Amino acid sequence: MHDPAPPILASEWLNTPAPLALETLRGRVVAVECFQMLCPGCVSHGLPQAQRIAQTFRAEDVVVIGLHCVFEHHDAQGPVSLAAFLHEYRIRFPVAVDMVGTDGPLPQTMARYALEGTPTLLLIDRSGRLRARHFGSVPDLALGADIMALVREGMNAD
Amino acid sequence: MHDPAPPILASEWLNTPAPLALETLRGRVVAVECFQMLCPGCVSHGLPQAQRIAQTFRAEDVVVIGLHCVFEHHDAQGPVSLAAFLHEYRIRFPVAVDMVGTDGPLPQTMARYALEGTPTLLLIDRSGRLRARHFGSVPDLALGADIMALVREGMNAD
Amino acid sequence: MHDPAPPILASEWLNTPAPLALETLRGRVVAVECFQMLCPGCVSHGLPQAQRIAQTFRAEDVVVIGLHCVFEHHDAQGPVSLAAFLHEYRIRFPVAVDMVGTDGPLPQTMARYALEGTPTLLLIDRSGRLRARHFGSVPDLALGADIMALVREGMNAD
Amino acid sequence: MHDPAPPILASEWLNTPAPLALETLRGRVVAVECFQMLCPGCVSHGLPQAQRIAQTFRAEDVVVIGLHCVFEHHDAQGPVSLAAFLHEYRIRFPVAVDMVGTDGPLPQTMARYALEGTPTLLLIDRSGRLRARHFGSVPDLALGADIMALVREGMNAD
Repeated sequence: MHDPAPPILASEWLNTPAPLALETLRGRVVAVECFQMLCPGCVSHGLPQAQRIAQTFRAEDVVVIGLHCVFEHHDAQGPVSLAAFLHEYRIRFPVAVDMVGTDGPLPQTMARYALEGTPTLLLIDRSGRLRARHFGSVPDLALGADIMALVREGMNAD
Repeated sequence: MHDPAPPILASEWLNTPAPLALETLRGRVVAVECFQMLCPGCVSHGLPQAQRIAQTFRAEDVVVIGLHCVFEHHDAQGPVSLAAFLHEYRIRFPVAVDMVGTDGPLPQTMARYALEGTPTLLLIDRSGRLRARHFGSVPDLALGADIMALVREGMNAD
Repeated sequence: MHDPAPPILASEWLNTPAPLALETLRGRVVAVECFQMLCPGCVSHGLPQAQRIAQTFRAEDVVVIGLHCVFEHHDAQGPVSLAAFLHEYRIRFPVAVDMVGTDGPLPQTMARYALEGTPTLLLIDRSGRLRARHFGSVPDLALGADIMALVREGMNAD
Repeated sequence: MHDPAPPILASEWLNTPAPLALETLRGRVVAVECFQMLCPGCVSHGLPQAQRIAQTFRAEDVVVIGLHCVFEHHDAQGPVSLAAFLHEYRIRFPVAVDMVGTDGPLPQTMARYALEGTPTLLLIDRSGRLRARHFGSVPDLALGADIMALVREGMNAD
């Protein structure tokens, strides 16, 4: 059994005309790239991989979302900085700013998902269940296979 | 409609106790890495990717085979040289030596498949049909997805 | 004939107990990495190369300085953000914040050196003359040679 | 004090109309890339670096020579194979085939230089003395500096 993915609690969205909600994305696989703009591993590996996911899969099969989970250097990674960062790095997919936590440095979605740090890639299936949580780096070949396995669930073979 | 994959015509096999035949591999996806040991693109990209396929997918789902398609420098790429090459590059999957052609430099399997050169990666589905032929480089993310799509054909969703 | 390198006009210095002045560095080769913290090429190539310079050459021969030349996204690349960036990317060499310009977006040192953009690597010889200005990427092998050529000027052969 | 570099004992030369002798190269720095064509580290790092040396320095300052030091897989790495290898990898600098040893697998120059394996890069100064012997990989930045230091020996500063 897999748990339903908790909702994304965002104080702001960038790169999208309107906020997204996971429950409106049912029927599609969702890849959520949890990152911080000043996290070196996110910049060198996590975000480029998320961009490759967006370029490789069809939009009707896979939605890519960024989640900016600021848990350190809050002053340096605010929304103005994030917008400049996304512009410079040519990141076009929708990005949610994780809601500031009420007790402690962890933002709310990050805490709810019990993330260990950034980058973390979450995979949510067509039914809205959390199916994978990769902290750190995951090889492209295995990831491509994992995403396609989710895409193919509940579909007939060719 | 997809064509059935022509048989592999081999004068010799390495890294396997007995020759393989595509028809005995029905039920599994087969990835055939067509290479030459002195082809720089095969050494830098094609063969490492084939090794990653073998490490990433389960042996009961995907079989990786090398096909040594010598169409130039025949004197430099004979079986003795190939065995040393496979040893030095730690290539463990079975490798077939494509049968020398009878009229021209192209070996027989390469000619039958109408390959454009090396490296070329062939993907054969569980029913023995040729489904993809990638000449040159193919990104890992897309390839992982393509292979998994073939693995999932005819299987029920989880 | 080579021009003397103009002074660095800095509003602030990080990673150093006191401001540096080029004229107090006479006798040593100075490598100045001109960057912006949100410039992808600076993050992927320029700054790592500057770190390698600092690790490769002896401190008595070569001084490495960063110059944060903000000419866009001023709100996102202020000193608080820069300090967090340097911490996360483990950049230990002294970094000057280029003085905001009085007429236009270009900061003052950048304007004085007529830099084309970031990353730019400046090389200043033991006598304080500007000897090289590399905009974009420069290969390590050629750069190592160029720096050593400056190090050896005016020294006797072994 | 540095030892004079022992002569290169070659059974054959490729990529040159006539054999080279170290003593005729006095006045120039000589970089000798000791390799085996089936050695993965030579193919991925050593030989590309030697090609970069040849492209970066002036021919009147630095001579690049390959030395094919076959100490294993002798049947697979003979001169015919080597010629095909050099062609495929676009290696243009002169390459000597190290003379087969009389007692044991090590070829004669390799034994005389007491090399630990391949790839090894030798640097010989303008006076013919052996100045460096790098087994394995050496970073480009440090290597560029080391070669330039040898180039500048005995020359006046600009």
